[in-house]
Amino acid sequence: MDNFIFQNPVKLIMGRGMIARLSEEIPSGKRVMITFGGGSVKKNGVYAQVKEALKDYFTVEFWGIEPNPSIETLRKAIALGKEQRVDYLLAVGGGSVIDGTKLISAGLLYDGDAWDLVLAGKMVTDTVPLATVLTLPATGSEMNNGAVISRHETKEKYPFYANYPVFSILDPEVTFTLPPYQVACGLSDTFVHVMEQYMTAPGQSCVMDRWAEGLLQTLIEIAPKIRENQRDYQLMADFMLSATMALNGFIAMGVSQDWATHMIGHELTALHGLTHGHTLAIVLPATLRVLRGSKGDKLLQYGERVWNITSGTRDERVDEAIRRTEEFFRSLGLTTRLSEENIGMETISEIERRFNERGVRYGENGDVTGTVARKILEQAL
Amino acid sequence: MDNFIFQNPVKLIMGRGMIARLSEEIPSGKRVMITFGGGSVKKNGVYAQVKEALKDYFTVEFWGIEPNPSIETLRKAIALGKEQRVDYLLAVGGGSVIDGTKLISAGLLYDGDAWDLVLAGKMVTDTVPLATVLTLPATGSEMNNGAVISRHETKEKYPFYANYPVFSILDPEVTFTLPPYQVACGLSDTFVHVMEQYMTAPGQSCVMDRWAEGLLQTLIEIAPKIRENQRDYQLMADFMLSATMALNGFIAMGVSQDWATHMIGHELTALHGLTHGHTLAIVLPATLRVLRGSKGDKLLQYGERVWNITSGTRDERVDEAIRRTEEFFRSLGLTTRLSEENIGMETISEIERRFNERGVRYGENGDVTGTVARKILEQAL
Repeated sequence: MDNFIFQNPVKLIMGRGMIARLSEEIPSGKRVMITFGGGSVKKNGVYAQVKEALKDYFTVEFWGIEPNPSIETLRKAIALGKEQRVDYLLAVGGGSVIDGTKLISAGLLYDGDAWDLVLAGKMVTDTVPLATVLTLPATGSEMNNGAVISRHETKEKYPFYANYPVFSILDPEVTFTLPPYQVACGLSDTFVHVMEQYMTAPGQSCVMDRWAEGLLQTLIEIAPKIRENQRDYQLMADFMLSATMALNGFIAMGVSQDWATHMIGHELTALHGLTHGHTLAIVLPATLRVLRGSKGDKLLQYGERVWNITSGTRDERVDEAIRRTEEFFRSLGLTTRLSEENIGMETISEIERRFNERGVRYGENGDVTGTVARKILEQAL
Repeated sequence: MDNFIFQNPVKLIMGRGMIARLSEEIPSGKRVMITFGGGSVKKNGVYAQVKEALKDYFTVEFWGIEPNPSIETLRKAIALGKEQRVDYLLAVGGGSVIDGTKLISAGLLYDGDAWDLVLAGKMVTDTVPLATVLTLPATGSEMNNGAVISRHETKEKYPFYANYPVFSILDPEVTFTLPPYQVACGLSDTFVHVMEQYMTAPGQSCVMDRWAEGLLQTLIEIAPKIRENQRDYQLMADFMLSATMALNGFIAMGVSQDWATHMIGHELTALHGLTHGHTLAIVLPATLRVLRGSKGDKLLQYGERVWNITSGTRDERVDEAIRRTEEFFRSLGLTTRLSEENIGMETISEIERRFNERGVRYGENGDVTGTVARKILEQAL
């Protein structure tokens, strides 16, 4: 186990009817900017619940934080927030709204262009307090301090770090009416978040391995049932809890991490607009095929504990573990090949070029260069 | 899944050499009272590391917080702290030292007798900041807001709640020289903490079940290896992490809890001075035997997932799961029967009398009364 420091201050408020607690959690007298994505929250009742809970506060609404939130949009939100002198932010939406609002929380107290903060690559601790009402389980942004911000103009997409949300409200009932494709992408995103922290080398921590495997087992157990009945409270509660627990640091203590799949996936989103969780379903199986050497021991453990693969040669067991992983993503209704999304060699070359240009080396062993990314993407064709 | 609110602000600092970080974590200029148990920290180097790290601070030492910390001892610590106007507390020790220091943290800001705070049964939020250096993995006190305080005069033992530690430092190397009996009791305590939050009804949360099972599987995997080599860093790190994760709220989200075994165990400690973790090894198997009706479904799940018991009738599988549980405690070198500790009917009657007098009803179904406690203890004879 590596040395580590862990701290996660987020207050997690989970369950039916919990949105009404907003007025107990946000100090009275605050000038609150509420940020939203599209209009789905008006159809599913979340907007009405939020407005009712905040009826005694000064509020200003900012609408239209898009999937893969863009600096272009967020600049407008920051300008509005400064103009209205807001001193509290409430993000109501999925990971994109929350991610975008994290940059707003930093941008409100920064005099320059907020894109500077993204490019600087440093954690920003001078922020306006931010809380969230989560509507889409997927990114874990509601309980971490990370975000991913895009710049449409240049098709770039980078990570950004600021303070954690003060609190996050998770009512599983708000997920009942999500489009099934979004649920599938959320399940995929959650699964791959776990894999990025787990599928490295074995023997680093028994506890962390078991917890990561427990999340994977949970997703495998609930996913087919969710696809049958998305209005089952217990199932959606476990999905929501899994997504939050998959990226809040709880399974990352003292273990190495990969994240190559995410970095390659981000490029697919930046270049083609493909939904984040969907890109991961395409990239992860290919990553495992290319890195089956260095990840072999962990793939065996994963195969045995998560998929109950206990017979066959080492190679056969690794094959089967990867095959089952890809099959899981397909069972969600997602495609798992670039060709199915009409993405070909041109994109692969562009991603290789970008990685080489940046001189990056991703993965727990720092061996995923532009050349390796090309191999992975070719395996995903 | 029940509605829940989760928040755990403790900064966990884990690994080799981390005690040196004390001076980065405690604000300079603080007047620090360091609390200790016995003298073992002088032998294993922890005392020297702590003193070196705090050489630029005003410090005062309080020694002698005993196992099952007593109000009689803690009153002296509070008096010393008030006299020395300390404004920061550092508990260096196991669960007893940390528990006791939690009461000190409240007592320093309270004008009356600190026993009032214990009897009041309310969480105290007006406290002096408290940090810990953990030396014995067991109670989880380093990452929760609970404590158990005894009054020797009347042989009473009650829970107490105050603020969480600001930070806790866990260096697995400090456990290498612990007496094997203390390690055994720590493993037992950790195991039963998990069981109190898990062995209730199934189907409340897939994630929480998997995480609890993951901790149990870890303990079962590492315990025999630890008994062979207590100086294996990876093993002791996983033990330390398990103990902390077993009682910091991470496996308690949205699920019911039992705690009857603990409440009965506390009485055995109060009346006979038996080490806490050891009392649990005696009480838990008997609790499971008596409550096998209401806990039957979960006992089957536990047997299958944790002990790989997959054949036999329902009754046979439940029997086997309980038998394996008791066998686990015995494999730690602990006795699991009251008679082995020369405890008999007189104690059983006294515990029944106390429970009846207090009118308590423990357990997730509130059905563990004095009468049921008697049945459990009779099963433990």
